[in-house]
Amino acid sequence: MTPKLHPRTGLDLRTLLDVAYEQARIGLDEGGIPIGAALFAADGTLLGAGHNRRIQDDDPSAHGETDAFRAAGRQRDYSSTIMVTTLSPCWYCSGLIRQFGIGTVVIGENRTFYGGEDWLHENGIEVIVLDDQRCVEMMSDYITTHPQVWNEDIGVADDADSAE
Amino acid sequence: MTPKLHPRTGLDLRTLLDVAYEQARIGLDEGGIPIGAALFAADGTLLGAGHNRRIQDDDPSAHGETDAFRAAGRQRDYSSTIMVTTLSPCWYCSGLIRQFGIGTVVIGENRTFYGGEDWLHENGIEVIVLDDQRCVEMMSDYITTHPQVWNEDIGVADDADSAE
Repeated sequence: MTPKLHPRTGLDLRTLLDVAYEQARIGLDEGGIPIGAALFAADGTLLGAGHNRRIQDDDPSAHGETDAFRAAGRQRDYSSTIMVTTLSPCWYCSGLIRQFGIGTVVIGENRTFYGGEDWLHENGIEVIVLDDQRCVEMMSDYITTHPQVWNEDIGVADDADSAE
Repeated sequence: MTPKLHPRTGLDLRTLLDVAYEQARIGLDEGGIPIGAALFAADGTLLGAGHNRRIQDDDPSAHGETDAFRAAGRQRDYSSTIMVTTLSPCWYCSGLIRQFGIGTVVIGENRTFYGGEDWLHENGIEVIVLDDQRCVEMMSDYITTHPQVWNEDIGVADDADSAE
């Protein structure tokens, strides 16, 4: 696949996405929701990577982006960093990106879920959508086979969800 | 102090705030940033309580509200729950509240920091500000004595912050 270079840093965004995708696959192998993310410095250094841990850790606060942010530890300035995520960031993760002034968010796909990316763009954050087919298929498959867990993860209360 | 009853549930909101305030004091005693929160069910059952853990756990993802949300574990429906926090929720925590459809947010004070509460109100979440003097004083004192840590916690990069 041809590289897609990031104008600000010259980094190949597809290579960065590979790290987030690998995290999502790890999550899937653990029995979890396959959403992964990674936070990079402007020079391409990986600061932290993570994935959704709702199922495997019983932790509803661990979305891909928040897990990667956590793994990166304390940072003094996020303005030049790049958050790469396999899926469009929900409001929770969009709020994280906005509050900490993360400069760029790179989104694997926004077909299966559309989060707060327009709001981020309006608030000065660079948003790049790669429309990656691997990410679309991974998430489509998961949502189809695990609709209740998926709804729980995005806070959609499902009245029909009487079964565990 | 006279009770302040919540119209929807009849719960005394000052009593609920005491739980969040106690969490903030625990955080302060641990050497951390004094922001606490607690998530309650509509019948007043405490689902989870927590506090900011940036300093003590080196965890930038643990804000008061996210820590309380995490402590509450997986829930299927947040619409009737009440998030009580000592301080106006930042965008990160406001995003959490919106994404998971938490019905009500009760804010100890919004004088020392003003977060996403108007956005939450516009998006259908009940917002109640108690303007609690204990909370104002606790946070004012902390911001005055620890301006760099505070700026780090809200993602404000401080060029003058060369000292650790």
